Amino acid sequence: MSRPRIGIFDSGLGGLTVLHAVRNVLPQADLIYLGDTARTPYGNKSKSTIERYSLECARFLLRQEVEMLIVACNTASSVALEALRVQTPCPVIGTIEPAVQSCLAILRGQTVGIIGTHATIASRVYERRLHEIAPHLRVVSKACPLFVPLVEEGMFEGEVSEKIIDLYLRPLETEGLEVLILACTHYPLLQAAIARRLGDAVRIVDCAHAIARGVKSHLETTSEASGSGSTQYFVTDEPSRFNALVSLLSAGEIKAVQLGDLSA
Amino acid sequence: MSRPRIGIFDSGLGGLTVLHAVRNVLPQADLIYLGDTARTPYGNKSKSTIERYSLECARFLLRQEVEMLIVACNTASSVALEALRVQTPCPVIGTIEPAVQSCLAILRGQTVGIIGTHATIASRVYERRLHEIAPHLRVVSKACPLFVPLVEEGMFEGEVSEKIIDLYLRPLETEGLEVLILACTHYPLLQAAIARRLGDAVRIVDCAHAIARGVKSHLETTSEASGSGSTQYFVTDEPSRFNALVSLLSAGEIKAVQLGDLSA
Repeated sequence: MSRPRIGIFDSGLGGLTVLHAVRNVLPQADLIYLGDTARTPYGNKSKSTIERYSLECARFLLRQEVEMLIVACNTASSVALEALRVQTPCPVIGTIEPAVQSCLAILRGQTVGIIGTHATIASRVYERRLHEIAPHLRVVSKACPLFVPLVEEGMFEGEVSEKIIDLYLRPLETEGLEVLILACTHYPLLQAAIARRLGDAVRIVDCAHAIARGVKSHLETTSEASGSGSTQYFVTDEPSRFNALVSLLSAGEIKAVQLGDLSA
Repeated sequence: MSRPRIGIFDSGLGGLTVLHAVRNVLPQADLIYLGDTARTPYGNKSKSTIERYSLECARFLLRQEVEMLIVACNTASSVALEALRVQTPCPVIGTIEPAVQSCLAILRGQTVGIIGTHATIASRVYERRLHEIAPHLRVVSKACPLFVPLVEEGMFEGEVSEKIIDLYLRPLETEGLEVLILACTHYPLLQAAIARRLGDAVRIVDCAHAIARGVKSHLETTSEASGSGSTQYFVTDEPSRFNALVSLLSAGEIKAVQLGDLSA
């Protein structure tokens, strides 16, 4: 029985929602977080660029001897998971499968909504996976590219956030959604405002909790169940902005370590 | 007398406003544009990261044998101009000085507003330069970090854009601004909506036209005044999104060439 050592990466802040969810279910794990803040965001970039960045993030985390890699970014999970699995000798957990399973576990009807970045929505990876399992589902997708900048500005609530949420969600209103998957790890930070806009009839699946459950069930036979693990933060840009935003989101102060050029 | 060969770079699309303004005043110039779309935006990143990216952009353009370098990005001009000048053997034109001179040329009163990215506003470079020339000016600055994502989404008008413009400009309303400097090359694309919000009493200075006038006066003694120059576009991410947005902004179709990793 060993203490699990898990690497988690995202383009920036969004993956912290996954980090927190994993920490809650695995207090004993050592978690190593990498935010590629010098190149954030990924969601409006191309597949080849996102693949390159994701592989560079994975390479750094593997050098930290992690035994599991969590791709805490839907954009990277949507377009780079195959490349990551081919080049990574440990288990790689993306956002898609846990979110799809969480969605199907609560779905009674047949209409699912997906919101995410341009790259995630364009990849159609959620639709494809949902249809593999449940061919008759109706899946409605919508890219919400201003949500990530809103979150990065800490604008989780307020008139402007509500206006932008309304802009993107209004077209989904008449679709009869039963479940909406927040297919971007930034979006749980807007979840309260999104839930208000959608009303009680729509249930929300966020990837962070879905991944955490998946990781726990994967590890619970091989890891110690007690103890308190460490958390280390690495970023590719100067860390002061990241530190300030993380402190805003979590209880304590953190000090992220800045890395050099990941592509070097 | 020769045909001038000018390199222009920005983190993404914004510098195209400068490219078009330069093309209008120098139809004979050969223009080489580089948009660092794989790492855009620069405006919420740190000085050291922006300096590194800017120097890499300059290095590429110098290999194209340009005889003048235009930093068509206020963020890079604000934090990296010194580093660029030290390492570049040809004249380097940033956005700050042309915009400051344009502002002072029309200013009759004493209150100037500056809007830009986090990095530009935090650098205080506009205030410092304005106060060097006119110590008694009152300068009011405001970071508008959601304007760049709005422009990158092509949302130049509409209810959401108006709401975001109102969010940022409302606090400036009572400041008695006479001139507002758009200290970001993306912002001219929101100029119509910004001007409507501000009303006729506030005059707007955009860097694109200011730079173009500066470049023309710099070159008019040494270059041919006629002929029609070429324009080449390079980007660091896959170019289809860039090409589509450029076509939206300009008359014709363009085909940008994708470069490999600039830091390699």
